[in-house]
Amino acid sequence: MKALVYDGPGNRSWTDVPRPTIVSPRDAVIRVDAVTICGTDLHILGGDVPEVQPGRVLGHEAVGTVVEIGEGVAGLAVGDRVLASCISACGTCRYCREGSYGQCLGGGGWILGHTVDGVQAEYARIPFADLSTYKLPETVSDEAAVLLADILPTSYEVGVLNGQVRPGDTVVIVGAGPIGLAAILTARLFSPAHIVVVDKAQSRLEAAKQFGADVTVSADDDPRAVVRELTGGLGADVAIEAVGVPATFELCAALVRPGGRVANVGVHGRPATLHLEDLWIRNVTITTGLVDTRTTPRLLDMLVAGQFDTGQMVTHRFPLEEIMRAYDVFASPAETGALKVVLSRG
Amino acid sequence: MKALVYDGPGNRSWTDVPRPTIVSPRDAVIRVDAVTICGTDLHILGGDVPEVQPGRVLGHEAVGTVVEIGEGVAGLAVGDRVLASCISACGTCRYCREGSYGQCLGGGGWILGHTVDGVQAEYARIPFADLSTYKLPETVSDEAAVLLADILPTSYEVGVLNGQVRPGDTVVIVGAGPIGLAAILTARLFSPAHIVVVDKAQSRLEAAKQFGADVTVSADDDPRAVVRELTGGLGADVAIEAVGVPATFELCAALVRPGGRVANVGVHGRPATLHLEDLWIRNVTITTGLVDTRTTPRLLDMLVAGQFDTGQMVTHRFPLEEIMRAYDVFASPAETGALKVVLSRG
Amino acid sequence: MKALVYDGPGNRSWTDVPRPTIVSPRDAVIRVDAVTICGTDLHILGGDVPEVQPGRVLGHEAVGTVVEIGEGVAGLAVGDRVLASCISACGTCRYCREGSYGQCLGGGGWILGHTVDGVQAEYARIPFADLSTYKLPETVSDEAAVLLADILPTSYEVGVLNGQVRPGDTVVIVGAGPIGLAAILTARLFSPAHIVVVDKAQSRLEAAKQFGADVTVSADDDPRAVVRELTGGLGADVAIEAVGVPATFELCAALVRPGGRVANVGVHGRPATLHLEDLWIRNVTITTGLVDTRTTPRLLDMLVAGQFDTGQMVTHRFPLEEIMRAYDVFASPAETGALKVVLSRG
Amino acid sequence: MKALVYDGPGNRSWTDVPRPTIVSPRDAVIRVDAVTICGTDLHILGGDVPEVQPGRVLGHEAVGTVVEIGEGVAGLAVGDRVLASCISACGTCRYCREGSYGQCLGGGGWILGHTVDGVQAEYARIPFADLSTYKLPETVSDEAAVLLADILPTSYEVGVLNGQVRPGDTVVIVGAGPIGLAAILTARLFSPAHIVVVDKAQSRLEAAKQFGADVTVSADDDPRAVVRELTGGLGADVAIEAVGVPATFELCAALVRPGGRVANVGVHGRPATLHLEDLWIRNVTITTGLVDTRTTPRLLDMLVAGQFDTGQMVTHRFPLEEIMRAYDVFASPAETGALKVVLSRG
Repeated sequence: MKALVYDGPGNRSWTDVPRPTIVSPRDAVIRVDAVTICGTDLHILGGDVPEVQPGRVLGHEAVGTVVEIGEGVAGLAVGDRVLASCISACGTCRYCREGSYGQCLGGGGWILGHTVDGVQAEYARIPFADLSTYKLPETVSDEAAVLLADILPTSYEVGVLNGQVRPGDTVVIVGAGPIGLAAILTARLFSPAHIVVVDKAQSRLEAAKQFGADVTVSADDDPRAVVRELTGGLGADVAIEAVGVPATFELCAALVRPGGRVANVGVHGRPATLHLEDLWIRNVTITTGLVDTRTTPRLLDMLVAGQFDTGQMVTHRFPLEEIMRAYDVFASPAETGALKVVLSRG
Repeated sequence: MKALVYDGPGNRSWTDVPRPTIVSPRDAVIRVDAVTICGTDLHILGGDVPEVQPGRVLGHEAVGTVVEIGEGVAGLAVGDRVLASCISACGTCRYCREGSYGQCLGGGGWILGHTVDGVQAEYARIPFADLSTYKLPETVSDEAAVLLADILPTSYEVGVLNGQVRPGDTVVIVGAGPIGLAAILTARLFSPAHIVVVDKAQSRLEAAKQFGADVTVSADDDPRAVVRELTGGLGADVAIEAVGVPATFELCAALVRPGGRVANVGVHGRPATLHLEDLWIRNVTITTGLVDTRTTPRLLDMLVAGQFDTGQMVTHRFPLEEIMRAYDVFASPAETGALKVVLSRG
Repeated sequence: MKALVYDGPGNRSWTDVPRPTIVSPRDAVIRVDAVTICGTDLHILGGDVPEVQPGRVLGHEAVGTVVEIGEGVAGLAVGDRVLASCISACGTCRYCREGSYGQCLGGGGWILGHTVDGVQAEYARIPFADLSTYKLPETVSDEAAVLLADILPTSYEVGVLNGQVRPGDTVVIVGAGPIGLAAILTARLFSPAHIVVVDKAQSRLEAAKQFGADVTVSADDDPRAVVRELTGGLGADVAIEAVGVPATFELCAALVRPGGRVANVGVHGRPATLHLEDLWIRNVTITTGLVDTRTTPRLLDMLVAGQFDTGQMVTHRFPLEEIMRAYDVFASPAETGALKVVLSRG
Repeated sequence: MKALVYDGPGNRSWTDVPRPTIVSPRDAVIRVDAVTICGTDLHILGGDVPEVQPGRVLGHEAVGTVVEIGEGVAGLAVGDRVLASCISACGTCRYCREGSYGQCLGGGGWILGHTVDGVQAEYARIPFADLSTYKLPETVSDEAAVLLADILPTSYEVGVLNGQVRPGDTVVIVGAGPIGLAAILTARLFSPAHIVVVDKAQSRLEAAKQFGADVTVSADDDPRAVVRELTGGLGADVAIEAVGVPATFELCAALVRPGGRVANVGVHGRPATLHLEDLWIRNVTITTGLVDTRTTPRLLDMLVAGQFDTGQMVTHRFPLEEIMRAYDVFASPAETGALKVVLSRG
């Protein structure tokens, strides 16, 4: 079969690899019907994730159809249409018992397209299939569902829930890429009074408005002044970091009011400066985290109920075999305007 | 009357100042019966707290007797024996309404010995007296009570409660000065399985053992190895920072397990480095905060019920008029072994 | 001045009484600009609240203008336009310190129109004025604001927050009178997937739809079947009781899923049957409570931000001097279609 | 092999049944090394649990040695010494994903000795073995461990955690049988100021004192007066129901202060009266629940760390083959003084 293979820093290919089979009794194999590309895949290609070895099939977000199941799989049958989530879960370690699947100690966590072959392929093996897939109702399209594999639960759990967004809050989201936009969608579930979005690109700020931000600020202007003005000088209740560089994290810490929360969602490669000389006295809570996908079933229910529209996030569509070109488009959002690209089986 | 006056960086005197009177209807004036010295007072003398002006009477922890009350004071009467807390509270601003008295926007917060004259004096004016004092039962001694003015609620609220210590946890406390020792006393209320204390001074580690730590480690040894060993390689559930320098904060962040909590109690003068390149994926929660003293009534109940013994924290006792010498003793703990010093009216 | 006076069970009059004056330093006196009638006032008239003595001026929900303040009032000035809340708060007792103003032990709680004269009058004395009133921005009308005196915070705190409504939940509200409708408005702040409303009156079910319920059921049909169908047989996540009789409470307890919450808002006069033989094993949480009005400032912010529209709740408007007739209209909702009636100074 | 078989209401026998084998890939079979009898077993024998069919092997609390595992069992090996918990968990249903194993929709929950054969036998089949057993460290004795199969996590989760016991609280426990005594042990982990225990039997009140209650009251005296006296007239912070009849539940509801919590642990066969006419205004929270055993690993850690001593609960020891006699002893605590009886393999 064909798959998108990481060939070492800077290199990838759509090439022939062996079709996966059941390795462990809890595995399933799916035929991939729709798949997307994550910013993290670009990080891997950039060589920033050294535990990914050349030869690895990438991808951790897919919708597919079950074609084979191991003997230990209880809740799936061949033919089931499922969401394959970015997080796998052994289900029995101390973290899985608490729903912290992202921290699984039993062989799960973020493994697809990372430490085992991923889903940017015609077929994929899904370990711990019972806990790592979600059956899809007919009314949900592949395209809408595939955004629940990573980006929606990540923004919701690590941004909105960790940040404890509450009705009437002023929420600042720094970064209006796909994660930041998904944070807008899911923050709105808690009816904040204001969603302020900060980004450098005017086009992304426009997108933020369309997703529901009521205030947008260029990072080159003065976000602190804007937030101060909006909050009677106090600062935001919640700041969500959705970029992953020191400056944006530090901005978040500067924007929250005493008693506020900073929820880091961005993937960081370098340390940031924490201004404890200011913060020690201010009752600030800072959280970090990898998604657990424990909210995926609930998000799926809400998608079915029409509570948000993930479709508006998909800007480009390709047949699966054009994934090489799709990577190019996704990697150049400034030129292409790409948010999320979806690849579908022909 | 006599009072301990800040005369600018490095200088203090026990000198004559006017006896305070009622300024606002919500004030009370107390005769000071017992008072203590805080590490923060040393910071002020070091010139690190520039908003304290020369001429200011220092001190924010006292037990006293009410000698005068304003017309707006409802719950106190002349003759009442009270604890005067380090935090005053207007009671009506948005923070006070949530019990976040430390963040009071209405003229309270930490003001005694900071922005108004404090309690290291024969008499003191206590603003917002109804919310800033606590009537003392007869069975509680001045010496036991005065430690509830700051150090016990600070360690409990900002360290133990913010850190969410739970039964069976492994708790690391970095710093075994008075705040760290009070954190041991109050962490024990939640029955952690292990309390690991890290400090540089062997004498303080000895004190930590007496207060209830079961494991002590010199900061010069390898605290990470000790905690790893104790926790099956995972790290501590909670790390409480009780020093206030970058290295100890960074140690705390390195010691917690995925899903763990870092509760900063230390007063910091410089920024720390936050290793987001490691932490972004680890579900860590970091909190900072000034004490609110919202737990003071409950701590007082527990003191009455004999649930902890603050007395063991008092190493030196002086008459009030020897406060100049008491500062010398308190400022040199390495030589004097001082933890808390208590000064009493003769 | 004129006031609506309780003359014993079944009797009321709009009559002359002395204009109130400052009694305690923390009092304010307001000129009443707008006032409403509560279902509780009807209970009082029915003789169900025996601690209300004949001669008492009724009413606990008003908007007014400050005309006089005591010496201990810090945050108000003559001329301020304020919301006078149904709950007064001493601000210093153990309950007030936790924001549980409704349980105030220091002379507050629900006192207006209950144990002291209320606000259905030309002027009213407001005890503990700093904590019992809220300054109103110009952009908020009297009519919109007066609904924040009781009904909105009651439904929000005692129904929605106690019931822990969460995004995607199925929420059942039993009773579509004013309290039930306010529960719909405030439940929507948490984006439930479904709001099911149960009532006997078709007109009220129609109103519920207009307020945002997506499913309505007559109490005479089979609400259990409807909820079962909607939830895959499990039951509702949250049931909010907004009537106050045993049958509706018992229905709520029967409608929630294992792990669900029953939030009682209704005022009850008789005991209910708790089917512990079914419930003991089902992880159900039941809460009761009087409003604390601790969310009033936040609700006011949300009203200003346009997050909900209280105006749709007002069905009838009268000049203040026609309050006798307004009571008649409010007391016969089946005939008049009354939800809330607002009386305004001429 | 031999097993204790339910022969219909009032009848049981120690008789030959087929030795269990693996039925599903996630099963394990254990050799039973130690087992105990639960009050629920007596209920079954009384005919109160009609879904238990004659012929069923009883028992849901055991320590054993794994003798056979299914192909889908990942974390166990033949020879492992394990705790077999009263709750089994499929691990994938919506309740299991939240750690609510007791409410498992996938075939787990309380099944052992209930809907499938139990552990009062020489061998037992344990469904969903990975999530339903806990490996035991060598330092923990069979006798200490077996009390973690049901009674300790039940009292801790359903009583102490649901009741939100906090440092300094006054906790009332109604019922001093094994569950009530385990509630004392586990409530102490949160350092309440007072543990008040109510029971009819003087011998049980004596036991309560030994387990750590500081106040005991005969149910025939006036528990309300005692609690009022102890709490300045307010009532208890938490009341834990550990009997299972209407009168004791109603007593709990009458004993808590405004804002207090009632945690029901008892197994009820009849409805209780809920005095909403008093409670509607008092901010009371009432919880019910079946144990989830999600705290079992943590309790086991605490047992290893010596944080409590379950051994004091075992009053009688028998060889397994004397289980018929052990039932007699356990069923007559008034005569025998039995708390928990432990049966061990010869």
